[in-house]
Amino acid sequence: MIKVVLLGFGNVNSHLLKAFNKSDEISVVQIFNRNYIKMISPFSAISFTDSISEIANADIYIIGIPDDAISNFSASLHFKNKLVVHTSGGAAMDVLSSKNRRGIFYPLQTFSKQRSVDFTNIPICIEAENPQDLDLLQQLGSVISKNVKIISSEKRTKLHLAAVFVNNFVNYLYQIGSEIVTKEDLPFELLKPLIAETALKIEALSPKEAQTGPAKRNDNKTIEKHLHLLEDNDFKDFYKLFTTALRER
Amino acid sequence: MIKVVLLGFGNVNSHLLKAFNKSDEISVVQIFNRNYIKMISPFSAISFTDSISEIANADIYIIGIPDDAISNFSASLHFKNKLVVHTSGGAAMDVLSSKNRRGIFYPLQTFSKQRSVDFTNIPICIEAENPQDLDLLQQLGSVISKNVKIISSEKRTKLHLAAVFVNNFVNYLYQIGSEIVTKEDLPFELLKPLIAETALKIEALSPKEAQTGPAKRNDNKTIEKHLHLLEDNDFKDFYKLFTTALRER
Repeated sequence: MIKVVLLGFGNVNSHLLKAFNKSDEISVVQIFNRNYIKMISPFSAISFTDSISEIANADIYIIGIPDDAISNFSASLHFKNKLVVHTSGGAAMDVLSSKNRRGIFYPLQTFSKQRSVDFTNIPICIEAENPQDLDLLQQLGSVISKNVKIISSEKRTKLHLAAVFVNNFVNYLYQIGSEIVTKEDLPFELLKPLIAETALKIEALSPKEAQTGPAKRNDNKTIEKHLHLLEDNDFKDFYKLFTTALRER
Repeated sequence: MIKVVLLGFGNVNSHLLKAFNKSDEISVVQIFNRNYIKMISPFSAISFTDSISEIANADIYIIGIPDDAISNFSASLHFKNKLVVHTSGGAAMDVLSSKNRRGIFYPLQTFSKQRSVDFTNIPICIEAENPQDLDLLQQLGSVISKNVKIISSEKRTKLHLAAVFVNNFVNYLYQIGSEIVTKEDLPFELLKPLIAETALKIEALSPKEAQTGPAKRNDNKTIEKHLHLLEDNDFKDFYKLFTTALRER
């Protein structure tokens, strides 16, 4: 049984709690959060504290708070020589205070309050200062995912950068699409089968193989027409940048 | 029974053939293509011609060829007063020669040779010059999809423009993501669960509600770090453009 304390209770840690709670091999013994949180069923039996001095004993402490708060928070912990990990894609392992044994437990996924998540296929990127801790994180990750990977802070940062492109930026293109059709009184629903298929396609094809469209086939007439149709200058900038890049590659 | 002749046999028409062939209500009586195509089982019984003067009699003629070839090709047809439609998102109905009755049958999806497609949920955008033809196209579309919509050429063009953003441009962001991780000797597979969830999320949330990431939360430290990490100047341009837009909206 691996005893875990969750430090902070944002999107990542609250989804981790749900996943950990399904297993008999992990016990979440306590949740710490600066602001009081009423734990509801089935989690009402889990101890909660908002006092940093009352943090319970555990095998692994998992910090799930904003990147720029990790360093100070980890230095403020009252204990020493315990395994303390953070869940951030973008922050290095050494932002954690060296008074504890340091590690990373980064689930590469987008989490939101409104959606439940199946961890089975989510890559869990782990890292630790010493081999025993890496083993323990491997064990913890394997309980919820079949995709646990040892990845250095340097590579993880690049992975996180790539994630910003395929998640945050992709979602913004969905928003542009939504705004274009909504302006025509057309429902965004019309684009959803296309969005789904675009994502599914790259399960089997590389993005390069999957690429189609006016820019790819150098259809200058359509490109000119589209630039003319776009009233929003920001959207025009996006259209031009993508079209130039797609023509060159 | 609706008799159909397919004019041209690229991605769209070959996928339409497969879908039409599953139904007893539609008979594809002939396929015309400029270059000879050997029809293989289960389509070997369908008549094929590469001669424009030998095109058979049908209720609907479906043109599936590049946009800029539609006009000349439709003018070269030997018959008159038949229902001739094209399948393009970007071309107006009136690019078709007026010697036949004109219409549109545009399935809003990305098609590739390597992937089979289920038409059930694909929006089929139809348009016709007269109500009887619109009825017939509605009937044809309903056999393969439960999502047939009457949409004007003007609105369809905007829909196609939005499709370029959520399909072609999104796919290019997948390519950038792939290039960033491949350079680190990390497998692109690591990003696939994130890509899938990003697309699934907007089934339930609007893109605006679904948005997360450094730009959205004004995390300037991470943004600066990412810009520093990006070695490719093109990728830097993309990062800056998206970040500026996400901050402003």
